[in-house]
Amino acid sequence: MTPTLEDARALDKHAAWAGLSEFRAAFDLPQGVIYLDGNSLGPLPHATRARLARVLDAEWGTRLIGGWTECGWMEAPTRIGDLIAKLIGAAPGEVIAADSTTLNLIKCAGAALASRPDRTRIVLEQGAFPTDRHAMEGLVALHPGHEIVAVPAARLAETCDRRTALLLACDVHFTTGARADMAALARAAHAAGALALFDCSHSAGAVPLHLGAAGADFAVGCGYKFLNGGPGAPAWLYVARRHQEAARSPLQGWMGHARPFAFEDRYAPAPGIARFQAGTPGILGLSALEEGVRLHGAAEPAALWRKSASLFDLFAALTPGLERLTPEDPALRGSHISFRHPRAAELMARLIASGIVGDHRPPDVLRFGLTPLYTTHEEIWHAATTLTALAA
Amino acid sequence: MTPTLEDARALDKHAAWAGLSEFRAAFDLPQGVIYLDGNSLGPLPHATRARLARVLDAEWGTRLIGGWTECGWMEAPTRIGDLIAKLIGAAPGEVIAADSTTLNLIKCAGAALASRPDRTRIVLEQGAFPTDRHAMEGLVALHPGHEIVAVPAARLAETCDRRTALLLACDVHFTTGARADMAALARAAHAAGALALFDCSHSAGAVPLHLGAAGADFAVGCGYKFLNGGPGAPAWLYVARRHQEAARSPLQGWMGHARPFAFEDRYAPAPGIARFQAGTPGILGLSALEEGVRLHGAAEPAALWRKSASLFDLFAALTPGLERLTPEDPALRGSHISFRHPRAAELMARLIASGIVGDHRPPDVLRFGLTPLYTTHEEIWHAATTLTALAA
Repeated sequence: MTPTLEDARALDKHAAWAGLSEFRAAFDLPQGVIYLDGNSLGPLPHATRARLARVLDAEWGTRLIGGWTECGWMEAPTRIGDLIAKLIGAAPGEVIAADSTTLNLIKCAGAALASRPDRTRIVLEQGAFPTDRHAMEGLVALHPGHEIVAVPAARLAETCDRRTALLLACDVHFTTGARADMAALARAAHAAGALALFDCSHSAGAVPLHLGAAGADFAVGCGYKFLNGGPGAPAWLYVARRHQEAARSPLQGWMGHARPFAFEDRYAPAPGIARFQAGTPGILGLSALEEGVRLHGAAEPAALWRKSASLFDLFAALTPGLERLTPEDPALRGSHISFRHPRAAELMARLIASGIVGDHRPPDVLRFGLTPLYTTHEEIWHAATTLTALAA
Repeated sequence: MTPTLEDARALDKHAAWAGLSEFRAAFDLPQGVIYLDGNSLGPLPHATRARLARVLDAEWGTRLIGGWTECGWMEAPTRIGDLIAKLIGAAPGEVIAADSTTLNLIKCAGAALASRPDRTRIVLEQGAFPTDRHAMEGLVALHPGHEIVAVPAARLAETCDRRTALLLACDVHFTTGARADMAALARAAHAAGALALFDCSHSAGAVPLHLGAAGADFAVGCGYKFLNGGPGAPAWLYVARRHQEAARSPLQGWMGHARPFAFEDRYAPAPGIARFQAGTPGILGLSALEEGVRLHGAAEPAALWRKSASLFDLFAALTPGLERLTPEDPALRGSHISFRHPRAAELMARLIASGIVGDHRPPDVLRFGLTPLYTTHEEIWHAATTLTALAA
């Protein structure tokens, strides 16, 4: 039986995610828009508007330079990192919010290569999010004799060998939505004597993550997708505590120094995760990110994932005739749903014109974010039935 | 004759900087505070408050993902770069606003080392701003056989030789305020076959800069000091056009790709300066920076420098008994004034307690920013006479 609009409305009242119902009202969601692109840029939380007004009026505008010590600016990267740690199965002191995902990938991979000086390979996935590979190509160019070995996701584990310094994998693939088995990949990397770095940009904030339990050595993720940190928000970076004292980021700067305000000529890395900072942290972006992360911290992770799975199941049930790329098994997927269609670009343009916002990924993929904090089953019903009608 | 308060007030009415008088009202400057730390964190422009409200309400909150194409977010790094270019004697297309000063130093120095593969030395100044050296140490660790040669400023030029890949110098020293002869340093570097990179963090926005005419190959600078971009604002980066097509940043990411939204596996650098981007640009921070830079763009650079010099002269005339570190000759100094005093920390604490905000740089330096956009001679009179009394 194809689900009806009434079925969708009933699902929105289901007890399994009743605790999430209050969150939708916490965001700016324009009238007449069904926003299914929160996996690309999350919407604006009302709390962020209020926070930025405070940062301007009561902090920067009033305290001026004193803000660094009086308003918690100096601690923002580690304080927000600790909030993110709770969402991704990491311990306090294992995460900072800083810079971009790209730059954090370079920091982590650089530290990994430095700790495996006798190994020359970075194993990564063909066709994963391009910046991951671009960042590694830049790093490999600085390491003569090193190389990138790009293989399909299914071959990542078996490709790790004694030449491998680092395995880099995406937790959730940016187009297909397919999810990696992080624990199995980390085991394979470790069995080969390599380290494992995960890009969790498309999972943190929506998909349950247990970085510590999975054995991840390093991880990075995005602040502007499911974490609702704002356009180009600072990213995050995770380094397992067991690696921190030996790890050296190749991107050294005064904010990673043990004593930044001693202005010492020689670099001495700060203890712990703080050494993965480089330049001065951007307070406007970090403040906005903190509000998005706080909102997530108030939601029950299991309820988020149950609702995400239900949104997916509804979308899938309403689109039986379309070629779905995203796996059906919840254990094998993230929090978006993708389809392949020869008229993908045209279909997405027509959907957007009718107020249903997903995105098109070339050449022929339609992608819809399932963001359980604020997306309703009713919205999914309208989006999926409209898509089906347009694609017919 | 020691200048009187009336003399100071008369200077504030001088025709040589009459055009700047309107700018003070453009900033949040708290009552009862004489703020002489704008060389560390510039104050909040009113226009920034209005701009951020627009970015939240009319852009992120309303356009959501569409903001990237509909609200000029994608072009922000190059658009703001072009505004900064006008302030620093660069051409359009030679500057971007991105990331932090530290990371931009790494990008530029990495590109310089890659273009001089047969050379192994980075020559830099002992006791310059520490992040410059920290960043270079990190980069040198990635280049086996390379080394840093740190010498006093006066020996930078003569130290450049055929082993030198890069000369890195600060335009204005962060403590002493002493200014380098950029053109002479660039000539010395070029005569040795090396490239020249300048850190202009303590000059851009207050001191006349002519990067093109001086022959600079690369330069970086800070957005949160004299440019009033906000705490931890994005920094800027300059690459002379003659180097752009060959230059490769070691920090590669999708925003520096020629076709970021084609999601190609292999990296292909964008034409021109855009290849020096890495990850997704932070729109909140960039928007704030743009307002600060715009304010500067409306001021006459020669008037700014004349007023800065006059503020300096007044401060110096009122502090004859103190050991001043900053050179007297305007051609040899930036836009702050520094003193050495054995009780520097205590004196600065007492000044701040009385509402006069400069800063202390260990062990024994008192530093006061001269920010001609908004600082008055009357404020300098009060600050200098209070300092003299406390130091007596």
